Amino acid sequence: MSWVELPAESEFGIDNLPYGVARHADGRQGAVVAIGDHALALDGAQRAGLFADVAALPDDAFAGRALNGFLALGPDVWRATRARLIDVLTDPRHRPATEPLLQPRRDLVMQLPVQIGDYVDFYSSLHHATNLGRLFRPDGDPLLPNWRRIPVGYHGRAGTVVVSGTPVVRPKGMIAPPEAEPRYAPTAALDIELEVGAVIGAGSTLGQPIAADDADQHVFGLVLVNDWSARDIQAFEYQPLGPHLGKSFVTSMSPWIVTLDALRPFVVPGPPQDPPPDRYLQTTRPWAVDLELRVELSSATMRAEGTPAETIAAVNFRTMYWTLAQQLAHLTANGACVRPGDLYASGTVSGPEPGSEGSLIELTWRGQRPLQLPDGTTRAFLADGDEVVMRGWCGGESGSRIGFGHVAGVVEPAR
Amino acid sequence: MSWVELPAESEFGIDNLPYGVARHADGRQGAVVAIGDHALALDGAQRAGLFADVAALPDDAFAGRALNGFLALGPDVWRATRARLIDVLTDPRHRPATEPLLQPRRDLVMQLPVQIGDYVDFYSSLHHATNLGRLFRPDGDPLLPNWRRIPVGYHGRAGTVVVSGTPVVRPKGMIAPPEAEPRYAPTAALDIELEVGAVIGAGSTLGQPIAADDADQHVFGLVLVNDWSARDIQAFEYQPLGPHLGKSFVTSMSPWIVTLDALRPFVVPGPPQDPPPDRYLQTTRPWAVDLELRVELSSATMRAEGTPAETIAAVNFRTMYWTLAQQLAHLTANGACVRPGDLYASGTVSGPEPGSEGSLIELTWRGQRPLQLPDGTTRAFLADGDEVVMRGWCGGESGSRIGFGHVAGVVEPAR
Repeated sequence: MSWVELPAESEFGIDNLPYGVARHADGRQGAVVAIGDHALALDGAQRAGLFADVAALPDDAFAGRALNGFLALGPDVWRATRARLIDVLTDPRHRPATEPLLQPRRDLVMQLPVQIGDYVDFYSSLHHATNLGRLFRPDGDPLLPNWRRIPVGYHGRAGTVVVSGTPVVRPKGMIAPPEAEPRYAPTAALDIELEVGAVIGAGSTLGQPIAADDADQHVFGLVLVNDWSARDIQAFEYQPLGPHLGKSFVTSMSPWIVTLDALRPFVVPGPPQDPPPDRYLQTTRPWAVDLELRVELSSATMRAEGTPAETIAAVNFRTMYWTLAQQLAHLTANGACVRPGDLYASGTVSGPEPGSEGSLIELTWRGQRPLQLPDGTTRAFLADGDEVVMRGWCGGESGSRIGFGHVAGVVEPAR
Repeated sequence: MSWVELPAESEFGIDNLPYGVARHADGRQGAVVAIGDHALALDGAQRAGLFADVAALPDDAFAGRALNGFLALGPDVWRATRARLIDVLTDPRHRPATEPLLQPRRDLVMQLPVQIGDYVDFYSSLHHATNLGRLFRPDGDPLLPNWRRIPVGYHGRAGTVVVSGTPVVRPKGMIAPPEAEPRYAPTAALDIELEVGAVIGAGSTLGQPIAADDADQHVFGLVLVNDWSARDIQAFEYQPLGPHLGKSFVTSMSPWIVTLDALRPFVVPGPPQDPPPDRYLQTTRPWAVDLELRVELSSATMRAEGTPAETIAAVNFRTMYWTLAQQLAHLTANGACVRPGDLYASGTVSGPEPGSEGSLIELTWRGQRPLQLPDGTTRAFLADGDEVVMRGWCGGESGSRIGFGHVAGVVEPAR
């Protein structure tokens, strides 16, 4: 138990210790670890000698404006640092030296925690892929022949991944209305995608695939991702080379990276896979994560009137067909390397039940069943002023709960 | 005329001055400019005071292991630096101070010139898109309805863009032979794509599209790109999210960035566009580049026997339907920003005539018309040991020729 005073419902307890990057009140920016409502500045902690017994930690491990340098050090250093942090934050003898280094989290402005090299977005929910197949290709088999053979994915734009809280300007793009000329216009189908992202810590070598069961030698931790999508722009552009401008305007991620080490108690078997995956995609131990996810939506009116946000989707990440280990094995199966700070996201997490779908196009079946909001309005897709908040946590009980915090964004009108 | 002795056929004359990054014999790595068979180390030149009158050039402009810092400074600084370099390398009064800073290029090992943020690959040759459409979708219209409306493109993997000379290990991937189960195997259809890449210098702001005619405020220069492609891996994976592992194993680029300023005399009108592009894709001045491109192929046997490489494709870049200005306007039309060091490539450059196609799948029509090599072997796709060299230049006469050098790679067996 930590000597730091923890709020009863804290999702950032001593078993979590997620990493982030914060801008402090004085303008400095650096790596922090969250504990309850506080954060520990890691460069300050290192200067104070708190990591002196973590032998492999270089002096500049937490230098720079992102976590990339620390992440590159690899799993042995991550674990030694985590063990030392738990020691420092639980043993009361460390309290006098450590307490002055803690800052209230409300005084910090969270930044993107890593400089992202490449961003890959998968498509690994059976239910989501089936739903999208039905909506986009109504005449064919909703699942294409490759879907159960490989974790289908594509590269997204790393430079437009932003931290939670960044406004989302309604994008414009080329849109083809039915029976009309295509034209450049603001999207009329702005959507969300509820995803979980994996952040690469230790890189790999060009030409050398990563074995699926070695994923935890490379993945540092997980974040929540909202893969904002303009369905009308996407529909016009996506054949034959896949999504581009319908996705690349902005992708939001939560600021706290929850480490795989913290998530270990919540690793569970995934759903059965039929046909059995090829050998390079097979794992000998479980890789799914029992992670509850929620999507909340509020209109500008609701927020002005103090109406609580509406929970529009609830789903568990363990329902994903392809695991993060299989995704990483696939991503590197052709010899492609990964680098510290690379991000790959799960694809929209949608479950089998109504209300468990992670996108509006599924929840409203392309507007045929609009969502009803408490302010009396309805939604097929997002309206200007809407705020979307995605949350995630493992474990039910307060104290043992490993929370992800949230990823949020407010829609601003097109410019 | 430069006081540096230039070989008669040099493609790196005083009108060119391409930028690169070299590892020197002593292990140091830094920015250089090519002049004839020599290169000028830019950090050394700056320390020697040669840029003292370029007011806006900060002291650390050429620090670091890539050109990103200099590129970020923007077009006014690029032009002032270029003017000063021309002055220094032509006025004999600068010879005593400058000559000691020149090194023979043969002593340098060229590196990737920029740290690439995002890499986008377009698909902007009408002839290539038509050919690929016929090959991949024989039953439909070869050009999809979006193709003449927007420069279709997708994101590739920035972390596997490598400098010319890096070996290309034959990738493995999931391949579905006709009438058989898909299986993970080395590609049997390793191909090339002849492309021209644009390197972003000055970045842009999230939410603010770049006007097409402002492309030269952001693009620093051009390089040659070989977008190696595994056609069998690509064929199985590419629907519905586009190419992924069939492309991401490696992409090669030439080490010298030829600046837009050097290319200005060779800017010409592109082909007519029908229908007229939407307003955001319109330009008021020409943006095509009269740039000759060649692809050479040699087998290991040919090189061992001293047989010259076979020229298998010859085409001019000015045949591209969409220009680099339209590509940049499209890339940012949804508000996506670009960053210094971003790369976007043209897509395969294929002309209308036989022998002008920039990929083997087109040149051999998927193997139906194999290439005949001087060593008596034939090629549908690449064999292990094959070397591909792509070259490019503007202007015919020696002295006035603006060359790109080349991008080369040798195929190594699958591991």
